[in-house]
Amino acid sequence: MPALRSWFTIPRGSHFSLANIPFGIISTTTSSSPRVAVAIGDHALDLEAFAANNGFSALSTIQPHQAVFSEPSLNSFAALGRPIHSVVRKYIQSVFAEDTPYPDVLKNNIALQKQALFPLKHVLKHLPFKIGDYTDFFVGLNHAYNCGVMFRGPANALNPNYKYLPVGYHGRASSIVPSGTLIHRPHGQFLPNPAADEKVPVYTQIKKLDYELELGAFVCKPNKMGEPVPIGQAEDNLFGLVMLNDWSARDVQSWEYIPLGPFNAKNFGSSISTWVVLIDALEPFKVRGIENDKEVLSYLKEKDDRTVYDIQLKVDLKTATSGSTATVANSNGRHLLWSFPQCLAHHTSTGCNLQTGDLLGSGTISGTAAGEYGCLLEGTEGGTKPFKVGDEERTFLQDGDEVTFTGVCGTDEEALVGFGQVTGKIEPALNLGY
Amino acid sequence: MPALRSWFTIPRGSHFSLANIPFGIISTTTSSSPRVAVAIGDHALDLEAFAANNGFSALSTIQPHQAVFSEPSLNSFAALGRPIHSVVRKYIQSVFAEDTPYPDVLKNNIALQKQALFPLKHVLKHLPFKIGDYTDFFVGLNHAYNCGVMFRGPANALNPNYKYLPVGYHGRASSIVPSGTLIHRPHGQFLPNPAADEKVPVYTQIKKLDYELELGAFVCKPNKMGEPVPIGQAEDNLFGLVMLNDWSARDVQSWEYIPLGPFNAKNFGSSISTWVVLIDALEPFKVRGIENDKEVLSYLKEKDDRTVYDIQLKVDLKTATSGSTATVANSNGRHLLWSFPQCLAHHTSTGCNLQTGDLLGSGTISGTAAGEYGCLLEGTEGGTKPFKVGDEERTFLQDGDEVTFTGVCGTDEEALVGFGQVTGKIEPALNLGY
Repeated sequence: MPALRSWFTIPRGSHFSLANIPFGIISTTTSSSPRVAVAIGDHALDLEAFAANNGFSALSTIQPHQAVFSEPSLNSFAALGRPIHSVVRKYIQSVFAEDTPYPDVLKNNIALQKQALFPLKHVLKHLPFKIGDYTDFFVGLNHAYNCGVMFRGPANALNPNYKYLPVGYHGRASSIVPSGTLIHRPHGQFLPNPAADEKVPVYTQIKKLDYELELGAFVCKPNKMGEPVPIGQAEDNLFGLVMLNDWSARDVQSWEYIPLGPFNAKNFGSSISTWVVLIDALEPFKVRGIENDKEVLSYLKEKDDRTVYDIQLKVDLKTATSGSTATVANSNGRHLLWSFPQCLAHHTSTGCNLQTGDLLGSGTISGTAAGEYGCLLEGTEGGTKPFKVGDEERTFLQDGDEVTFTGVCGTDEEALVGFGQVTGKIEPALNLGY
Repeated sequence: MPALRSWFTIPRGSHFSLANIPFGIISTTTSSSPRVAVAIGDHALDLEAFAANNGFSALSTIQPHQAVFSEPSLNSFAALGRPIHSVVRKYIQSVFAEDTPYPDVLKNNIALQKQALFPLKHVLKHLPFKIGDYTDFFVGLNHAYNCGVMFRGPANALNPNYKYLPVGYHGRASSIVPSGTLIHRPHGQFLPNPAADEKVPVYTQIKKLDYELELGAFVCKPNKMGEPVPIGQAEDNLFGLVMLNDWSARDVQSWEYIPLGPFNAKNFGSSISTWVVLIDALEPFKVRGIENDKEVLSYLKEKDDRTVYDIQLKVDLKTATSGSTATVANSNGRHLLWSFPQCLAHHTSTGCNLQTGDLLGSGTISGTAAGEYGCLLEGTEGGTKPFKVGDEERTFLQDGDEVTFTGVCGTDEEALVGFGQVTGKIEPALNLGY
């Protein structure tokens, strides 16, 4: 499919080509009220201003709902359902198309361009959704296998349930923050010497601070408590995807996680990218995930075998001390055993009600080779194999380190569907005074 | 302390004596808008109507905040902080006192009595809080020990971390429902024959449906992300307590829970009692919890050694088939190794931000003897030892069974501080059509 050309300047290589149209929440120096926008090239189009100035006059479907664009989260827009998301995205594409059928809406409307188009570098990006519940899955098979090998050896690396259900657990919604939010090194309870016979923990600054490279999917359509979502309908219950960094305190995790799973090791912060890429925009990049050699139960069986996305993922690390930068890992959204619709169908399989704005994380996404590991635990084999960033050595993160994930679909520089970046910088631990 | 006497008829043995004054959310036939109320004897006092009719005219502290009583949840009232909860509770006690200094407020104001006092049996009780995140702990040591013995034998029943930190995990907030909500038997993925060598699961109606007898604590004061709450301040961050039934699908749980903990086995529903008993009201019933023979780290060490509550807890089961009723268990809120303030301090110890309305569960509360087990898994030794309800036999719950928890503090029938009940009836599984 040739790239859609625009009358508007969209730089080559932009993640936010006309093929994308991701949604987010912005505020600006002109108005501090968070509101809905889409990203297009180097700009954000303020949909509140756009709607208020008859931008949607040619789209009768959305007119009764225009108030959703003035809200401080995408929840109300998302709740309108996927058919509405589709027409709004297509309409915005047509407004920006070189041969737009609506030239008076924006192309020839310099006043509205001035009022509604803001350079991205001048807008503040907020959390896109008011998140009710956050669930993190563990469906990056390579990551699960590599961690399993470390803890249990290759013969028992994956638990017996792993290929029958998308393993997941409930995470912490309150500490999900937008890209750019500083992350303080946490204190935590852990064993200073895990190998010692005597298991006596301490409470102090954690040492093994890690990131986890994940994708996240936002729910748009809720389901009633008690009513599982059939697998054939599950995709339509999803709004779109973001990148997710599930910061992890490995020393806390290994001490606390038996028997109820990770808790304080994960709940101190998770960062997400701020532009949500719609399910529709990702459709052309569907690929087969990791093959499952077990018979999948019918409530999880999808018709199409292309169920995950070819998203090129990259982890960069920049140190504060020397300013050195290194690409630590390259991975891909295809390295998943289960798709998000499968995760959603499973999540609701006992009747759990998902709500608009709930976030599902994929779990860490790793490839199979060196340089493709989605977290440092894997990349450094539990902290035993340091790597280089310029002249510096790292096993886990040090204060001042800045971690940046980048994710993008496609190779045509004029038609990329990208996520932008999610970054987070490690600040020194707070002085707790006790 | 002698019972406070009231001019208002409070039946002997009422859970809602003048010593209590628990808060909740009600609606009535006269107004379907959910709003704040307190329970007193057999009645609810509608605080919206009370405030609108100058009920708080003698309490200047609350006047600027009276709008909180018109809200459909306790979140805004709770966010005012414990000192305000205290004065409001004491003021309401004084309004109802036999020798009330404010006779014109309600005692002699028949019009307001008619407008604001509703028989409890005629009001609809709603979820008291808008719950952001729900965390379930596992600090009922006897329960943890009994389950540990079943799975690992007595020598390794408790994991090495158990006595050093309040073990907990993130639960599902969206499926927390008020007492009386019907619970459909869920479908789920589990092993039809767990003992078989070949681990091939099915997806069908679950068989091992269980309850869990817990207490829940609501957070009133939020803490900022990154900033742990010192143990000395933790109690003031709590609003009050409810009873909690954490329904559990044991067949799903045993198949899914390794390595990330319980997920679908728990997220299909949790029921709570609807009147929240304030921390202040529970103060006279503080007792020592289960003794910890390990050295508690200073961030978890409380000054007082009375940190949990002497709450008499009871589980009743009523069957639909014969209408038989049996008291299945008696337990007590004292059977906890860690207090709620300790749970809160630990929860925030890596910097996790708790918010007003978040719910913390205690985990199942069991005594040490037969008849004191807080769930059927323990009471029937994993379903191997049936018990009698009338002429019927039970191991796990059957369709039509109704489970009722009752919780009350004190023995003076005129000064009980009770929680009322939390009930839930098991409806047959839905026909999923697939």
